[in-house]
Amino acid sequence: MTVNGIEHKILDHGYVKLIETWGSDYRIIEAARMSTQKGFEGWGDNTPCNYDMAAAQTGKPCKRGMHNCGVDHKVGDERLLRYLWEHNHATPFEMAGMVIEVQAPIFVFREWHRHRTQSYNEMSARYAPLPDLNYYPTVERLMMGGGHLTKQAGTAAGAQTLTEQAASDFVASLHGNYVAAQILYEESLKDGVPKELARLCLPVGRYSRMRASANLRNWLAFLTLRMAKEAQWEIRQYANSVAEIVQQYFPRTYELFAEAR
Amino acid sequence: MTVNGIEHKILDHGYVKLIETWGSDYRIIEAARMSTQKGFEGWGDNTPCNYDMAAAQTGKPCKRGMHNCGVDHKVGDERLLRYLWEHNHATPFEMAGMVIEVQAPIFVFREWHRHRTQSYNEMSARYAPLPDLNYYPTVERLMMGGGHLTKQAGTAAGAQTLTEQAASDFVASLHGNYVAAQILYEESLKDGVPKELARLCLPVGRYSRMRASANLRNWLAFLTLRMAKEAQWEIRQYANSVAEIVQQYFPRTYELFAEAR
Amino acid sequence: MTVNGIEHKILDHGYVKLIETWGSDYRIIEAARMSTQKGFEGWGDNTPCNYDMAAAQTGKPCKRGMHNCGVDHKVGDERLLRYLWEHNHATPFEMAGMVIEVQAPIFVFREWHRHRTQSYNEMSARYAPLPDLNYYPTVERLMMGGGHLTKQAGTAAGAQTLTEQAASDFVASLHGNYVAAQILYEESLKDGVPKELARLCLPVGRYSRMRASANLRNWLAFLTLRMAKEAQWEIRQYANSVAEIVQQYFPRTYELFAEAR
Amino acid sequence: MTVNGIEHKILDHGYVKLIETWGSDYRIIEAARMSTQKGFEGWGDNTPCNYDMAAAQTGKPCKRGMHNCGVDHKVGDERLLRYLWEHNHATPFEMAGMVIEVQAPIFVFREWHRHRTQSYNEMSARYAPLPDLNYYPTVERLMMGGGHLTKQAGTAAGAQTLTEQAASDFVASLHGNYVAAQILYEESLKDGVPKELARLCLPVGRYSRMRASANLRNWLAFLTLRMAKEAQWEIRQYANSVAEIVQQYFPRTYELFAEAR
Repeated sequence: MTVNGIEHKILDHGYVKLIETWGSDYRIIEAARMSTQKGFEGWGDNTPCNYDMAAAQTGKPCKRGMHNCGVDHKVGDERLLRYLWEHNHATPFEMAGMVIEVQAPIFVFREWHRHRTQSYNEMSARYAPLPDLNYYPTVERLMMGGGHLTKQAGTAAGAQTLTEQAASDFVASLHGNYVAAQILYEESLKDGVPKELARLCLPVGRYSRMRASANLRNWLAFLTLRMAKEAQWEIRQYANSVAEIVQQYFPRTYELFAEAR
Repeated sequence: MTVNGIEHKILDHGYVKLIETWGSDYRIIEAARMSTQKGFEGWGDNTPCNYDMAAAQTGKPCKRGMHNCGVDHKVGDERLLRYLWEHNHATPFEMAGMVIEVQAPIFVFREWHRHRTQSYNEMSARYAPLPDLNYYPTVERLMMGGGHLTKQAGTAAGAQTLTEQAASDFVASLHGNYVAAQILYEESLKDGVPKELARLCLPVGRYSRMRASANLRNWLAFLTLRMAKEAQWEIRQYANSVAEIVQQYFPRTYELFAEAR
Repeated sequence: MTVNGIEHKILDHGYVKLIETWGSDYRIIEAARMSTQKGFEGWGDNTPCNYDMAAAQTGKPCKRGMHNCGVDHKVGDERLLRYLWEHNHATPFEMAGMVIEVQAPIFVFREWHRHRTQSYNEMSARYAPLPDLNYYPTVERLMMGGGHLTKQAGTAAGAQTLTEQAASDFVASLHGNYVAAQILYEESLKDGVPKELARLCLPVGRYSRMRASANLRNWLAFLTLRMAKEAQWEIRQYANSVAEIVQQYFPRTYELFAEAR
Repeated sequence: MTVNGIEHKILDHGYVKLIETWGSDYRIIEAARMSTQKGFEGWGDNTPCNYDMAAAQTGKPCKRGMHNCGVDHKVGDERLLRYLWEHNHATPFEMAGMVIEVQAPIFVFREWHRHRTQSYNEMSARYAPLPDLNYYPTVERLMMGGGHLTKQAGTAAGAQTLTEQAASDFVASLHGNYVAAQILYEESLKDGVPKELARLCLPVGRYSRMRASANLRNWLAFLTLRMAKEAQWEIRQYANSVAEIVQQYFPRTYELFAEAR
């Protein structure tokens, strides 16, 4: 399926945009059924059942197709999808996937690129000057701190407690830093410094852009790590948008993923 | 793009069938242009040119967009596609791909599965009895021998020269072997031998079936190895059909691939 | 460390043999400490402590270094190793690994080769006739059945309950099948049938041999899937031997792996 | 083999250091011979031969073991090694490998990490403040420009020709930029800005450090791309040092690699 999705706006200048998906919940079933020489048989119906109502009351997710509720509703292939998911039969989830375009600060890309099963094509400062887009965290964001479960990710040893004033001052100083870097960058490019060296002064808060492609299994692995509360808040915002796209195009798989988190 | 392709018939019972492609020649350009912050600009026109005519006479492929022929025709992104290809800028070719379904003898799958960048879902003799489909090479095929460039792949040391009669006798004996194996298989399944052990007697000439998914870069790597004359004749027939599908959906990339072979 | 290990005998003719390991529990720590710019600091001492004694009584594993037992013993880097393991910080475990040699039936290799992160070099029937080694399950093994958790892996639909007599008959028939296949194989090789086609009659119970290399992270993923009770009994025997080697060379990591199973 | 190699100094503050190798030229042969069920047979002797002398005169590399020179010298497994190399039988080269430690500027790591078959453990600015080490290109380096074959990698459109004075001025300005970034970094850390955000101002010329592991096949692929004249000069210096280590531990394989460049 070829689509050019809307941009999901993220941070001050970032975005995630769907370029294309392939496969579907249905294709996953079809691939898994290779093992038993059968094909896709159909999803179950949506008849409400006693179990559903009980589930709604307890707040537990409904495992339609895996219960015995007394209502004679059709049980469909969501049962197999769940089985695959819960028993880590992961290869059928490699039969679907998606390509997205992402604009994010370099420090976010540095984390992102550790996912070595994705394919990347990124803007290159060797080939074209980078646009003057930089990430400014809000004071609110700064006050959230970085110590989500991982003590090490927090403030430096011996640091003061961050005040709103200090946070605000940091953003102002960062602005000065960004502006100065851009001036030096532009000047040196004009003077004939090769693009690949003029970039040395650019901060990791500078935005870059890329296309990223992966199969669904690997996108879910990405989400598991990057939606986790230990992940840095910035990359989590990107992961949340990726998750929305996954949910839109692979709703049954996403439901299982979300339930397991 | 979601399609369910026609079956390309291969050998006596085999096939390759397209399930789905994603991306396109156009998407490859678009991804590559991330590096310079530009997008797809359009393919060139088809105006014949002096170079083309010269090329047609010499039998050399036309490198439209990379020459200076005096005709004022539009030069398009085929020039970039060629540049990427010839300079091994391989990652843009990971932004497209395809899923196929394959029916082939086990010994062919044994070679195929060495391509570790593909994703596989195969029929399993643990979960369902394998259908009684076996590969019979023709006498003509047998007489072709196996020593294509690689001496080791030929006949055993001290063997006689294969005669048509001996080849024909081999096929007859193979038939006996296949029938006997099937009888033992069915009998033992009926007697309650677990499926995962009843299969021990099945020969590697037995057909199996799978879905295989890979990106275009990896499909082309597969074709490079498996269309080569050193590859076993049987897997080459499959590779040839995969190549036809690649050619149909990624014609400009395939042209570059074919030109380089 | 270069070693040529002893052969771990498996099934009737199979083996697993260590060729070489690299890295160590210590190297894993050292790699993980890159993130905080520190190195390996040392393992803790072995002083018994109150916690250990309590642990011994309850049968729960001792989490040395993660408790407060009142004894003043040195707490070492086993604490970090556990943290990495329990929080899925998997990349440090890629800094160690091992190469092994394996002799196993083809149907076992067919399952093994689905682990696409390993590197393989296998005996090839295209290049040299395969030795006449075949796998005979014992009657005891046959009576175990195949239905370990996965109903589908059991006996075929409508099958009788396997008796010891029928199991014994199956082994005898399998012997006939193996012998007949070998005769046909040898005859056709002599007659000049190319090796790559003479092999068509060989059963998947035939032994082959390979070298396999992977990093420790991927060996542990292999063990997770192949030591599981859902895995076929035969490949589990191989996995158990691989586990013994892992335990010998990476004892602290293996302890964490075993504890989590 | 466990070694802790000497540091190869690179740029102003960088290094490459061998941590450990595994496998060897010999192991590669041994793995390749799995296919024909033979082992390592020995390297040839070093008897000079007519061919060698002719080769020395013509400047062409000697293909010992693949010629007929009239001298009766022992022909060894270098012949097979060459065959594997020249026919792209790549998997035996996956049976060896090495782990190194690297200190390099972030923009070099950004290029390095595109090699997705390597394993990485890098210093993290989330967990510990980065040391104040920054890359200063020399005037000489700046005057080399960036346009090695790839026009796009050169100076920006409309730029002046770089003078030595302008290059020298750039280094001075870069120093100012580095110092200012470090002051802001330290101040904000003291003020309690979380480490993961204080880093926003750090330039991509800042040094980081990592361990990298890959098998020999993939190290050679890295060298092919990063020793090429199209690669940025800085990463080429690192690749050259990696090549020296490969040459030291895998001399026969390296010789074939170097000959093919």
